[in-house]
Amino acid sequence: MTAFRTFEDFREGEEIDLGKKRVTADEIIAFAEEFDPQPFHLDEAAGKASVLGGLSASGWHTIAMLMRLLCDNLLLASTCMGSPGVDKVAWKRPVLAGDELHATAKVLGTRELKSKPDLGVVRFLFTVTNQRGETVMTQENAILFARKEAAA
Amino acid sequence: MTAFRTFEDFREGEEIDLGKKRVTADEIIAFAEEFDPQPFHLDEAAGKASVLGGLSASGWHTIAMLMRLLCDNLLLASTCMGSPGVDKVAWKRPVLAGDELHATAKVLGTRELKSKPDLGVVRFLFTVTNQRGETVMTQENAILFARKEAAA
Repeated sequence: MTAFRTFEDFREGEEIDLGKKRVTADEIIAFAEEFDPQPFHLDEAAGKASVLGGLSASGWHTIAMLMRLLCDNLLLASTCMGSPGVDKVAWKRPVLAGDELHATAKVLGTRELKSKPDLGVVRFLFTVTNQRGETVMTQENAILFARKEAAA
Repeated sequence: MTAFRTFEDFREGEEIDLGKKRVTADEIIAFAEEFDPQPFHLDEAAGKASVLGGLSASGWHTIAMLMRLLCDNLLLASTCMGSPGVDKVAWKRPVLAGDELHATAKVLGTRELKSKPDLGVVRFLFTVTNQRGETVMTQENAILFARKEAAA
C-alpha cells in the first residue's frame, strides 16, 4: 500500500513507481471515438498504413492512462490540490493495442508557495515505458500539495 | 465547411475558430471515473468544498474536449500526421458542469522539416474560453502536416 503523503513527504530525486496498465484495442477505439477520431486511432488497417504501424492510442489517451496510474498509486493517498498546468510532453513512440505501460514519477524539485503558505509545489518528471522497456512518453508537470499542518 | 488544408495552407498569425462544446455533469463524471477519480471531479459537494467551487472537469478532460473540437474543425480535413508533443499547458480557471467552451487555434509559426521533406511543422497556440469569455486553458503544441506534393 501507498503511504499517505503531504507536501513534506516528497524528496528531490526520489522515484515513485506508479504501476502498470495493459492497453486494449477496445479502449483505444473508445477514447478515439469520443475525443480524437483520427483514422489511425480508430482502425487497425489505417494504423498499419500510417507511420504508427498499427492501431495506436491517441497521445491524449496515453496521458489520461498515466493520470489514472498517478491517481491510483499516489494522488488519491495524498493532499493533492490540483495542478496549474503542464510544462512539456513528448510522445516518443506509438502505444499499440496489447502494449503494457509502466509509469514512474521522479521528483525534480519541491518548493513552498509564498502566496499560499499552506501549499507547496512538487515538480515531477513522469516516464511511461512499454513492455520492451522503450520510453513511449515523458511529461513534466507541477502538482500542488497541502502542507502537513494544513492537512492536520 | 472547413476547407481541406495541407502544410502550405497555414499562415503565421492566423486564428482558426474551432467551435463550441457544452460540458455536462455526466461527461465530467464519466471521464473522471475512468481517468482522474479525484473527489472534486466526481461529486458536486466535493467540488463545492474545494478551491474549484463546483463539480469541475479534469484538466485532462478539458484537453480531450479541445482535441475533439480540433479534430472536427481542422485536423480531419487536413493532411495531419500527428504531433511530437506539447510545449506548455496552463489550466487557468475551473471548467464547471454547464459551461460552454469555445476554442481557437492561433498559428505561431510554420517550418519545413529538413529530415522529412514531405512534412512540415505548424506550431499552434490553442485558447479555450468559457461562456463569460474567460480563458480557462491555453496550450501550445506543434502538429505535423504533409506538404501539398506529398498529399497529391
